[in-house]
Amino acid sequence: MKIITIGREYGSGGRTIGKLVAQKLGIPYYDRELVDETAKHSGLAVEAIEENDQVVTRSFLYDLAIGTSYGYVNHAGAHMDLNTQVFLAQRDVILKFAESPCVIVGRCADYILRDRQDVLRIFIYADKKSRLQRIVEEYGEDASKAEKLLAQSDKRRARHYEEFTDSIWGARRNYDMLINSGMLGIEKTAELICAFAKAE
Amino acid sequence: MKIITIGREYGSGGRTIGKLVAQKLGIPYYDRELVDETAKHSGLAVEAIEENDQVVTRSFLYDLAIGTSYGYVNHAGAHMDLNTQVFLAQRDVILKFAESPCVIVGRCADYILRDRQDVLRIFIYADKKSRLQRIVEEYGEDASKAEKLLAQSDKRRARHYEEFTDSIWGARRNYDMLINSGMLGIEKTAELICAFAKAE
Repeated sequence: MKIITIGREYGSGGRTIGKLVAQKLGIPYYDRELVDETAKHSGLAVEAIEENDQVVTRSFLYDLAIGTSYGYVNHAGAHMDLNTQVFLAQRDVILKFAESPCVIVGRCADYILRDRQDVLRIFIYADKKSRLQRIVEEYGEDASKAEKLLAQSDKRRARHYEEFTDSIWGARRNYDMLINSGMLGIEKTAELICAFAKAE
Repeated sequence: MKIITIGREYGSGGRTIGKLVAQKLGIPYYDRELVDETAKHSGLAVEAIEENDQVVTRSFLYDLAIGTSYGYVNHAGAHMDLNTQVFLAQRDVILKFAESPCVIVGRCADYILRDRQDVLRIFIYADKKSRLQRIVEEYGEDASKAEKLLAQSDKRRARHYEEFTDSIWGARRNYDMLINSGMLGIEKTAELICAFAKAE
């Protein structure tokens, strides 16, 4: 396997696991780099790209706030909303990065690369208790807000995925392995993913 | 992990993978044995138990065909339909087998043992192409019927699971790992499951 994409639930440790997998396999890890590269490549604002990773808002709110489109034009020749522009610009960057082995976290990368045979598509989830613990202890969020954050984040990620793909976030069909990181913990989950990557 | 439960899509090779995992770990594998033991334990007919593993039919059809219940009585004192009797009798057998390490395939075992900490719950699926190929080449089914068989079987297994649990068949929350056997093949998928079982 050349490319590993990692979709993940908020609080599942997916980002840390992705970094570890990349380290262990000696290949680059792309996460924040995708935002910077997308900004450079497209001229879109970093803030707009970051925002897009989190939320799908109705496009007119963006149009209202930002004024006009950034130059991406759809098939009908109409200006596209900002979310779609960000998605397409980021897709270009993902396709470019995926020319050589790497780990890519989030951003519908599994969907964008779905027709390639050399991509291992992973989804990381965890039981609620492990997630809440991680959100509070490692991400430093307020315990009283953790449960709400978790529900909101799942909803946002699902909505974003479903807005830009014809599939459902976290459904097994989109992945080659889905794994509960609450069972083995960060380190051993990363090892298991590496074992899969090396097995083929 | 002491117990490994394996849910699986028809044609994913889940049964063969389960046997291999049991062999590799040197623990018993329960599949057909569950039917025989359930029959012995409950006095229910083997045919009824086999039927129940495949389909959920409206209970009155069974009542009509078989006449009366086999002695299981629910909390309200009413006679239960045959499917429920089979489910409960098989649950008793699963709980008994799960007193020592083993691999159990199908039969909602993941749900029945959901509160135990020493159970590794696996779900095996595969892409349609791999499944169709296995159904024809290994199970000897007619190629022209394979696609229909596959759809029917998924529907039946999902209906059976959802009839007797409060959850959805193949949804990640019910499992610790879901794995596409079409990616690595039977042998290496079994190895990966063993690696998970040994990792804790």
